[in-house]
Amino acid sequence: MATATPYQQLEQEFRRLHAFRGVLALLRWDAAVTMPRGSADVRGDQLAALQIECHTLLVSPRISRLLDRADANARALADWQSANLREMRRLQDHAIATPPSLVARIAKAVARAEVRWREAREQNDFGVLAPQLEEVVKLARSKAELLAQRFGLDPWDALADEFTPGLLSRDIDAIFGQLSQRLPELVTEAIELQAHKPAATIDGRFSASRQRGLCLDVMKALGFPFDRGRFDESDHPFTEGVPGDIRVTAKFRLKEPLQGLLGALHETGQALYDLGLPAEWVDQPVGQDRGMALEESQSLLLEMIVGRSRAFVTWLRPLLETHYGAAGAEWSDENLYRHLNRVARGPNRMDADELTYQTHIGLRYELERRMFSGDLAVRDLRAAWNDLSADRLGLVPVSDVEGCLQDIHWALGSFGHFPSYGVGAVIAGQLWEAIREDHPGVEAEIAAGQFSGLLAWLRERVHSMGAKLGVPQLVQHATDRPLSAAPFLRYLERKYITEN
Amino acid sequence: MATATPYQQLEQEFRRLHAFRGVLALLRWDAAVTMPRGSADVRGDQLAALQIECHTLLVSPRISRLLDRADANARALADWQSANLREMRRLQDHAIATPPSLVARIAKAVARAEVRWREAREQNDFGVLAPQLEEVVKLARSKAELLAQRFGLDPWDALADEFTPGLLSRDIDAIFGQLSQRLPELVTEAIELQAHKPAATIDGRFSASRQRGLCLDVMKALGFPFDRGRFDESDHPFTEGVPGDIRVTAKFRLKEPLQGLLGALHETGQALYDLGLPAEWVDQPVGQDRGMALEESQSLLLEMIVGRSRAFVTWLRPLLETHYGAAGAEWSDENLYRHLNRVARGPNRMDADELTYQTHIGLRYELERRMFSGDLAVRDLRAAWNDLSADRLGLVPVSDVEGCLQDIHWALGSFGHFPSYGVGAVIAGQLWEAIREDHPGVEAEIAAGQFSGLLAWLRERVHSMGAKLGVPQLVQHATDRPLSAAPFLRYLERKYITEN
Repeated sequence: MATATPYQQLEQEFRRLHAFRGVLALLRWDAAVTMPRGSADVRGDQLAALQIECHTLLVSPRISRLLDRADANARALADWQSANLREMRRLQDHAIATPPSLVARIAKAVARAEVRWREAREQNDFGVLAPQLEEVVKLARSKAELLAQRFGLDPWDALADEFTPGLLSRDIDAIFGQLSQRLPELVTEAIELQAHKPAATIDGRFSASRQRGLCLDVMKALGFPFDRGRFDESDHPFTEGVPGDIRVTAKFRLKEPLQGLLGALHETGQALYDLGLPAEWVDQPVGQDRGMALEESQSLLLEMIVGRSRAFVTWLRPLLETHYGAAGAEWSDENLYRHLNRVARGPNRMDADELTYQTHIGLRYELERRMFSGDLAVRDLRAAWNDLSADRLGLVPVSDVEGCLQDIHWALGSFGHFPSYGVGAVIAGQLWEAIREDHPGVEAEIAAGQFSGLLAWLRERVHSMGAKLGVPQLVQHATDRPLSAAPFLRYLERKYITEN
Repeated sequence: MATATPYQQLEQEFRRLHAFRGVLALLRWDAAVTMPRGSADVRGDQLAALQIECHTLLVSPRISRLLDRADANARALADWQSANLREMRRLQDHAIATPPSLVARIAKAVARAEVRWREAREQNDFGVLAPQLEEVVKLARSKAELLAQRFGLDPWDALADEFTPGLLSRDIDAIFGQLSQRLPELVTEAIELQAHKPAATIDGRFSASRQRGLCLDVMKALGFPFDRGRFDESDHPFTEGVPGDIRVTAKFRLKEPLQGLLGALHETGQALYDLGLPAEWVDQPVGQDRGMALEESQSLLLEMIVGRSRAFVTWLRPLLETHYGAAGAEWSDENLYRHLNRVARGPNRMDADELTYQTHIGLRYELERRMFSGDLAVRDLRAAWNDLSADRLGLVPVSDVEGCLQDIHWALGSFGHFPSYGVGAVIAGQLWEAIREDHPGVEAEIAAGQFSGLLAWLRERVHSMGAKLGVPQLVQHATDRPLSAAPFLRYLERKYITEN
């Protein structure tokens, strides 16, 4: 038997790392869905031990040696192998910058903060979370500074790069700049136009089990594999797991017949992305998703663009009748469409329409940068949130749960994450424009409950590329055009103004 | 800061191992309770990767070196530390005998066999499981032979020692010898006596949610900590987890109002044992339970001795009224007591009374030894099971599910496990005799729903000893008498003959 090459040995090591990451995913899923609340400390120790293990593996002298030896023979590698080697090196570079003791402290602080966030929401009091969040921010900043030193970046950029490789704050600022030239007016115009087309309110109580039944039917039509995945409830919807065991959650509210479904569509978009990743690279770095902005593009394409289209409503309506016994004028295609696409300046990101959504992201981006730079003390977050909310959205949240306790991200130590939601929407807009050009029948198919054409395009152009290309290159590859906010703005303009 | 001693460094390493073992416990719980069926291969890879990690840690030259250096300074250690060091050494000795490649092959084979076992039960066909079980037996035998070489034991003994340290097959044979002198006749006599005291059948349909509600009330009274533990359903009841996150499962059958509860009592007994382990040693080898026979003694004490006593029935009856709306003569204390203690030769171990239970264990013990020695081919297990069942129990199972597919143990690769059920019952009998002597009010307390006296005794004499003593020494410590089947036989004699 021939000896394994350095590159082959690296694949073997990263296969082990992939297994551990799958385990970490399960530990997190369990913590949010099934774990007893009092077990957070035990879970924190387990997460910390396993994260240290991953870290130790990544930064080991053996991996460094193998990377150097594989680099020296890089010409012998095929292009996917080269990209895999590049991603291995990238992961190690990130890991080496953060010492194991800090990794462990972050893991423990985050496990506690997650529990505090839940308690704070129950008590509707940001003060319950604040001290623990302060600890998380402090530790995240320490990490960012170490990364920044290694990569010669601004600390916040260094964190953001870990989530969305290839996109730095200058790219993000450019995209947000394009958006800000048109969006604020577009919101005002859309609201004015919609004032002439009111949507009848949809009353009633919709039990979690009915909402779940509806979601299951929609997810089945989209091809979610229930023999290799789960669908559960949690405080905040999320997708966790690995291809082969993908777990999606939703949150159902009794008086909201559609919000839970839209959340499930969002998460299913991410799950389908994960499931479409290149099978032969599933346990290697190059076989992973291309970061948060890309994940979000897949989520928002389903939730915002497809899930709120006239075509989708045409298909969905009979299902609403089946699960909710929906009858009456308020359940007509036209009223449902109006209802789903209502533009309004509200307090919640998760409930926001696709126009004001960008305002919510901008607010978080700004507060995060200020909190991160030390310009805003964590204990003052509630006041700053409420002030900025008044300025941008014209409203002050009536409670912390409706305000600064909306999202779990910061409690989880996810800084640099929020902007990827905005960029994700922009990418989704660009992908959608390309799909409609390449596959003009896509909307007719959706109206008939056929999603295979849409998914085949996404699999071929986006999912199957894994982490082979950077974010801007991947968008260029998928659409044959450079990444730009213009297609997204064209989509919004057509939907909310021209075809309103 | 003083440098850590070799012993202190060992504690640190075993703390990490404890975290990984807690993660393995969660992976197993999830596989049985929440995991999608098609994800078994992914889970197998995860279990294998983590088990290899534990194995690699245990057998590392660093641990060997630290063990040698700690041994050289053993006089400086307190007695719990000495016992901990002895248990560390014992774990390493066991681990070194089994190479990582074999550990990985066993983990994967077992993950597949678990799925096959479920499928075989659904199809009521042992043939579905047989090929995979053959693979598991083959691998278990390879492991046993390696252990046997290292410890100079018979291969089966070498496996059994891993589960019940300090008890070898000669001890097991001696205990079973004591039992066999009296039990077969005792069964016949009990059945004859009970023929004069028939139990009225308890009809009705008892939904899983009602049965669950009853179990929750009983578990609360017993002190099960629901803020640091869970109670779920699975195909086969089990307890999994670590103190701080203990998870118990039950199986409910619609027409059986009490079997699910008794299973839950069984598992709660083990969970309370785990929760009573010495808190300061929770993450160290000496702080773990003293193996399967001891676990089983705690389970059977609750399920068989306490849970089927007149005292317990007195307390339980009003709860049955609350949860089942139970009314009528068949729900009287006397009839419930008769119902719970019916002696009958039936096909199922899980449903067996405490007299014929030993027959079920004997049958498995014999078949396992024959299968293990190669004397019985795995594909012939069904026929051998049915023959032996006819001989010992006077009946042939009507189906594989009622016969050789009853238990998951062999599919999980657990050989040397079954005898510990029989020994566990014997230990439970000896503990119960000692408790009644030390604490004569115990039955009156149980009748009033007060379990704290019973639990305090068990905590002090058994649970808090962790793995400090071997099984026979622990029983001697708890009861001031050597391990013997005599107290168990006295208990049975009194219950089924004298006080019948």
